[in-house]
Amino acid sequence: MSETLITRLDASQSDFKQRLDELLAWESVSDTRVASVVDDILHQVKTRGDAAVLEFTNKFDRRSAKSMDELVVTADQLKNALTQITPEQRKALEVAAERIRSYHKHQLQTSWKYTEADGTVLGQQISAMERVGLYVPGGKASYPSSVLMNAVPAKVAGVDELTMVVPAPDGELSPMVLAAAAIAGVDRVITIGGAQAVAALAYGTETIAKVDKIVGPGNIYVATAKRAVFGQVAIDMIAGPSEILVICDGLTDPDWIAMDLFSQAEHDEQAQAILLCPDAEYLDKVEASIARLLPTLSRNEIATTSLKNRGALIKVADIEEAVEVSNRIAPEHLELSVADPELLLPKIRHAGAIFMGRFTPEALGDYCAGPNHVLPTSGTARFSSPLGVYDFQKRSSIIMCSAAGASELSKVASVLARSEYLEAHARSAEYRIKD
Amino acid sequence: MSETLITRLDASQSDFKQRLDELLAWESVSDTRVASVVDDILHQVKTRGDAAVLEFTNKFDRRSAKSMDELVVTADQLKNALTQITPEQRKALEVAAERIRSYHKHQLQTSWKYTEADGTVLGQQISAMERVGLYVPGGKASYPSSVLMNAVPAKVAGVDELTMVVPAPDGELSPMVLAAAAIAGVDRVITIGGAQAVAALAYGTETIAKVDKIVGPGNIYVATAKRAVFGQVAIDMIAGPSEILVICDGLTDPDWIAMDLFSQAEHDEQAQAILLCPDAEYLDKVEASIARLLPTLSRNEIATTSLKNRGALIKVADIEEAVEVSNRIAPEHLELSVADPELLLPKIRHAGAIFMGRFTPEALGDYCAGPNHVLPTSGTARFSSPLGVYDFQKRSSIIMCSAAGASELSKVASVLARSEYLEAHARSAEYRIKD
Repeated sequence: MSETLITRLDASQSDFKQRLDELLAWESVSDTRVASVVDDILHQVKTRGDAAVLEFTNKFDRRSAKSMDELVVTADQLKNALTQITPEQRKALEVAAERIRSYHKHQLQTSWKYTEADGTVLGQQISAMERVGLYVPGGKASYPSSVLMNAVPAKVAGVDELTMVVPAPDGELSPMVLAAAAIAGVDRVITIGGAQAVAALAYGTETIAKVDKIVGPGNIYVATAKRAVFGQVAIDMIAGPSEILVICDGLTDPDWIAMDLFSQAEHDEQAQAILLCPDAEYLDKVEASIARLLPTLSRNEIATTSLKNRGALIKVADIEEAVEVSNRIAPEHLELSVADPELLLPKIRHAGAIFMGRFTPEALGDYCAGPNHVLPTSGTARFSSPLGVYDFQKRSSIIMCSAAGASELSKVASVLARSEYLEAHARSAEYRIKD
Repeated sequence: MSETLITRLDASQSDFKQRLDELLAWESVSDTRVASVVDDILHQVKTRGDAAVLEFTNKFDRRSAKSMDELVVTADQLKNALTQITPEQRKALEVAAERIRSYHKHQLQTSWKYTEADGTVLGQQISAMERVGLYVPGGKASYPSSVLMNAVPAKVAGVDELTMVVPAPDGELSPMVLAAAAIAGVDRVITIGGAQAVAALAYGTETIAKVDKIVGPGNIYVATAKRAVFGQVAIDMIAGPSEILVICDGLTDPDWIAMDLFSQAEHDEQAQAILLCPDAEYLDKVEASIARLLPTLSRNEIATTSLKNRGALIKVADIEEAVEVSNRIAPEHLELSVADPELLLPKIRHAGAIFMGRFTPEALGDYCAGPNHVLPTSGTARFSSPLGVYDFQKRSSIIMCSAAGASELSKVASVLARSEYLEAHARSAEYRIKD
């Protein structure tokens, strides 16, 4: 064990800021070859519709479908998936879905209005999007939890039609993913993937209705395609690698913290797991736990690489400083493994999700606590939010002027419009000024 | 007057759907030359900071600044602008700002949480972004109302530092724009523009702090730069040409409706103004008003081109059908110039802002009614909302499990994690299962 398992840093080091920046540095690679492949696929699907989708699907997923019909999962197949998983798995999906639904209902926004003294009414009308597309990756990255986390908020929002696309390489589909779709209330499942699936959802084809928004994770082709159609349709965030930041007071079982760090590190080699603690001896203990437990993981190679290249155990002066560092990082997942996490909460300015106390590991939030596991990565918690019901609702401003109100407002509008050399604006307002 | 002033359509025509689609068709031109110029500017500013910003500003805006200091508008200059406009203008800006502020306060979201039977606490913590950049175009497109509409919601949200950038070609700045910035509470004004200003805000330089979000309109260079930095920072929507859809029952003064249509058409040649009415004779009257009033407009050339190429007077069977057509268009501005607009409101599914009744012309919403004038264009009201306080706030999920709650949830998480072959997730949860 001469090799470093994980970087050790001390916030009091003079070069700490720089070393932390280096540790956090991550930039999505924009690949011009990928971009040009994706551009072609988008163009083909836009101009040739279903025919292009079929061709790409047969080619990339090694299918031999003659028509789009063959790529649609029927309602029966979907229901059938519920019997192809164990009763324990089904129960777990159902409990998770119900908890996610119940939490997300709190996010529903409702229309509001108020009336001014002169009778003018102002407000905002909230409505759901009509059609949403949910992208689910194929193969091993095909996560049922991801289906629940994306589909349930859309249905809580009241989306009319939720279409899920999931590639079935060699015709293979995960029964857990289909079962999750059935439980979450997905309206339609089509076994297509890649940029061709994004294009079909964004532009519409003969058999697939154009959607208003596309959500869900995907590989670089999917992410590039989503970025390209952004504006035509809405998209969710384009996620970077997953990360966890744990603030610990040094009193949680070190094995627990090591495993919490692993639960991030096992995702992929770019994932990032960082622990902040004021107690250097505790950091030693966690490092020992890491050394002992890491080899016991089935995904230990991935976790080892992730911890070695992107992980860190950081000694801070006190919990106060830990919070400061955390706010600078704006982590996707923040675990407050301390005695009184509520004391810290008001000081947390930027974080995707905050896991409070020793009994709240990130894994619970990933699956079934209720809140969403689609969270802002790579410091974007500074300006973005967990996926939620609000991502599937939109607002219309409401303005209804009384004659008296219009007369007064028109005088103001007239002055401003004329200052902007927009005469028709001014005259349109002036017609509504009384005598 | 042999030339067509404005297209006349009838929703009962067999080719109506197709003709409407042709009328609405609009796609933003992505210009590869612009993209490559912008890429270079972004790269220069990212790597060379202030020096690059200075060079580009001196070059493009014909300035001769030696340092960034010379490009900063001082607090005194800002305050001074209030004395360089007429008292009537100042009053109008103040009334508008106050009404916008008062409306937007209704949009403030607050943190919430709830406790489950076993003591587990779930919720969402809402906080404001720290730093926001507001882009304001220079020259004639430098609209004070746009400063109010972007700055006020950001300050209502509680943004710590709002930096406004506005180019000053040949050193010239609009006093109305500076006055609006002073009244809206903008924290800092820097006279830079173009892609270099977007880059400075997105990446930060020696003198300009990196912001979390960039909002505000701009030309194709600005829009291209915003699209390129999207992800690094948040951006608002990238707007298409402005549009209005008027639904009229045929009982509003035709001159009023003609002028309401002009108030959109005068913006630019791509702007779109459409009227829907079940009464063909009324459409004739509006067409006559258009013919008579159009030549009296100072911007009559722009309005004439806009109406001729993109405008339409459309005969519908009834108001019901008008609402259907409107929902298909998902207009930025929707005027319900009818006797009882409240009856129609629940049927309106997609619209940026809804102007209800004969006394509510769009112009009032553009300046001072209270709601925002930054609205989703080109049918994007299907999935996006007016700019609002919510665009400057973000959310963090809160999860605090009791020991009992953690034990139960961990059992569910363990099953799901193992189904996804994420063993560390499962084991992290399993540590929290009691005995």
